[in-house]
Amino acid sequence: METTETLNETQLITKDQLLNQWLGQRKVTRRVLDAFPEKELFEFTIGGMRTYAQLTKEMLAMDGATAKGVATGEWSTLDEEKSELTTKADLLASWDESTEKIQKYWKQISIKNFQEKVVAFGQYEGTGYSILFYVMDNEIHHRGQGYVYLRALGITPPNFWEQY
Amino acid sequence: METTETLNETQLITKDQLLNQWLGQRKVTRRVLDAFPEKELFEFTIGGMRTYAQLTKEMLAMDGATAKGVATGEWSTLDEEKSELTTKADLLASWDESTEKIQKYWKQISIKNFQEKVVAFGQYEGTGYSILFYVMDNEIHHRGQGYVYLRALGITPPNFWEQY
Repeated sequence: METTETLNETQLITKDQLLNQWLGQRKVTRRVLDAFPEKELFEFTIGGMRTYAQLTKEMLAMDGATAKGVATGEWSTLDEEKSELTTKADLLASWDESTEKIQKYWKQISIKNFQEKVVAFGQYEGTGYSILFYVMDNEIHHRGQGYVYLRALGITPPNFWEQY
Repeated sequence: METTETLNETQLITKDQLLNQWLGQRKVTRRVLDAFPEKELFEFTIGGMRTYAQLTKEMLAMDGATAKGVATGEWSTLDEEKSELTTKADLLASWDESTEKIQKYWKQISIKNFQEKVVAFGQYEGTGYSILFYVMDNEIHHRGQGYVYLRALGITPPNFWEQY
């Protein structure tokens, strides 16, 4: 904690704080996933959009791989298909693996990495921070859509503000 | 720009960069608002949720007031009602006013302010950065819901990734 406090005078947010923001969001997103009934998770949709299982797979394609990419400069190709994940339990387990992967690679990310140019997944140009924000924002965006699906199914979604 | 570049070695994201992230998101959110037909903006809903006009009013209650609060320590009470905003044109004009207010107060926010304890709107405890992130995330969350409303109405929403 001392390191963090020393840095606070020159940083608006520290690396630990940004990680905790993300992990807090991920807790909400996991609860939203878990709130879906098995069948509707893979079948329910509104207005021709993707199912919540598909939206979750997109998040899973980007999250841990982005932490790894920013930390190491190694980018895998984007696999949003993830056809091996066929049940809610599969998705939840994959979610937890991604959370561990994020925490593992976050330790290797230097402050400098956040400002370095990246070509994420071999195709998206940005900086370390911009691609990380994109992935976090994309998660919130699709999770917001999940809230509407749940409401349309008559299910009360988890509270947005309980990010712990 | 020189200030920013000097700070980059100790900051994962600079104050200017965070502002630009927010302003980029706000451009997308403005386009989503503008994509709604007048009637449906104030009447359409799914699963008992609020209309997109009401969701936008919540954003407008928080955005500029939070920038001001973090900058000055002065917090107004939260007014999500905003009954004076009765048309899409009213909401768009209010959106643009808020964007100017954010830019104005952002200049007054010090790096230290991001780490200081706040009681936002006299009731929400956090730090400068945590309340700002909350407001930005809340915007993305509700805008994601707006995407579902638009799709349900047969309208193609603006691209999420065009944050400029």
